[in-house]
Amino acid sequence: MLDLARINQPIAEFLARELVEVSVIFERQLASELSAVNALCMHVEHYRGKMLRPTLVLLSGLTAAPDSDALTDKHRTVAAVVELIHMATLVHDDVLDEAEVRRRGATVSHLWGNEAAVMLGDYLISNAFHLCSTIGDPSINLALGAVTNMICEGELAQLHHRHDYGLDENAYLEMIRRKTAALIGECCRLGAKLAAAPRPVADALHQAGIVLGIAFQIQDDLIDLIGDQDAVGKSLGKDLDKGKLTLPLIRLLATVPPRDRGAMLRLIDAADTSALRSRLLNSDAVDYARRIAANFIQSAKRELAALPESPARDLFDKLADSVIDRAF
Amino acid sequence: MLDLARINQPIAEFLARELVEVSVIFERQLASELSAVNALCMHVEHYRGKMLRPTLVLLSGLTAAPDSDALTDKHRTVAAVVELIHMATLVHDDVLDEAEVRRRGATVSHLWGNEAAVMLGDYLISNAFHLCSTIGDPSINLALGAVTNMICEGELAQLHHRHDYGLDENAYLEMIRRKTAALIGECCRLGAKLAAAPRPVADALHQAGIVLGIAFQIQDDLIDLIGDQDAVGKSLGKDLDKGKLTLPLIRLLATVPPRDRGAMLRLIDAADTSALRSRLLNSDAVDYARRIAANFIQSAKRELAALPESPARDLFDKLADSVIDRAF
Repeated sequence: MLDLARINQPIAEFLARELVEVSVIFERQLASELSAVNALCMHVEHYRGKMLRPTLVLLSGLTAAPDSDALTDKHRTVAAVVELIHMATLVHDDVLDEAEVRRRGATVSHLWGNEAAVMLGDYLISNAFHLCSTIGDPSINLALGAVTNMICEGELAQLHHRHDYGLDENAYLEMIRRKTAALIGECCRLGAKLAAAPRPVADALHQAGIVLGIAFQIQDDLIDLIGDQDAVGKSLGKDLDKGKLTLPLIRLLATVPPRDRGAMLRLIDAADTSALRSRLLNSDAVDYARRIAANFIQSAKRELAALPESPARDLFDKLADSVIDRAF
Repeated sequence: MLDLARINQPIAEFLARELVEVSVIFERQLASELSAVNALCMHVEHYRGKMLRPTLVLLSGLTAAPDSDALTDKHRTVAAVVELIHMATLVHDDVLDEAEVRRRGATVSHLWGNEAAVMLGDYLISNAFHLCSTIGDPSINLALGAVTNMICEGELAQLHHRHDYGLDENAYLEMIRRKTAALIGECCRLGAKLAAAPRPVADALHQAGIVLGIAFQIQDDLIDLIGDQDAVGKSLGKDLDKGKLTLPLIRLLATVPPRDRGAMLRLIDAADTSALRSRLLNSDAVDYARRIAANFIQSAKRELAALPESPARDLFDKLADSVIDRAF
């Protein structure tokens, strides 16, 4: 995913240079007078991945205002802010999920204890809000505050629905909209807004981001069930370990013959990944989840198609495809 | 502590009414569309205590501008924000400290699991920043973001110094300045600033809050070592369990004859509360810690004494005394 250079080299190279600047802002923000804090923050590097969210802030700015030199310092700052928010959720998810391996490295909670992971996540989220406040535009703070509220609500709802095997598709989609899609949508909206895009353009990119985010999470959840751990570089099967139903299993339970339902629930409850994997692959559940994700990507692409044609828009369109083509 | 009615009934009653309004803002902010989230938030009530921080926002406003109708909606909102920040740290401290009892109730982490406590704390901090953003003044977001950064740095430093029995008094004071005093100082500064106080008045109240906060934490730490668990209503001895040195033990280690030092370190490492309690009470360490705290309170009172005389200022002065007189 995000091998953008293959698609549009000039814009991809431009974005890559911008992302380096975003990383500089990110690291400068976290630098502390205290060496113990800096030592722990170095570990955050292990979590850094695709930088999807900062990329979408920048690419939405370019898509919204393709003719101008649209990217401002505010774009780069917001891009660093959303990456800080995302990193905070990853670090706290590790407390939640007891995952031992992420991005081929040990997690903070594994290496330093749960308490350090809680505190480090808090430090990241606090720095996100602090950095955001340096922009001096309260509407950005308010919008991102509303989004982080929603992320927490999504996570709390997910926790509440653990081992709830009656969870249906709509409740699942609503949960991932809050947990994942709200932030990705806001990245796109803010990128457009900071490029002085007209309201309908910002709204279209907002909506494109939300549906892209839903598709992204469906794909993530699919990979957790049937992915290749070596390719992904983090522990898989964790949703099952934690009693979290995701789309393929929701579909499987909805379509299994009544006489097999009890056996299926026992496999889910026992988190028997390999047995469930073969059941999933022998059903329509994986294809079904892929089709639902593809529908959301189509919806994102329709939003993009209504915007003025530009190389940035085309790159965004290809990025949308790559969200569901990825194996990691 | 904070039985202000005994001291100045008219102002205490006025503050009590204002604090009811602050609680309404606090609860309205946390209300969610999701019933699972609301159910968890109800549990936060068990953590609510003295409301020291909101009280200081309001009382600083009244002290800074005693002649006017100084308290604004912004005061009440900031008061709710700082209480949300404080509640978030308490909820996350329970993840840290595995405390089983706080305020005579079970902790979130004990009842619902560590993961719910992490997420609930995140929901509180996110709502704090969101509520703060509704004020529309980026300088308040920036100031409180800087303070929450500092709180996290203090907590991370404390974690780093666990089982570090060479921790000295200066390092301890610096740690509690970040962890506790920075927020209390900012409550006072913002209360004054929002009452349109001149800069020197806001600075004096800021400084008064910082030293009062240091004294408050010294007293808290003292209670954790030698307090009466029934009176306090939360688990004691937790600092020792977690290998955290606080002022009385730092003093004890600094003054113990060299031949006894090894035995003392073994008691500390074994978290032998009752043996250490009698050692502390047979040394000057408790009096020493009380004297240091009293010096900080004197310093707060000197800052207050330089401000114009008023009933609010007198109440603040008495509140400062009560910080170190309390047994819980």
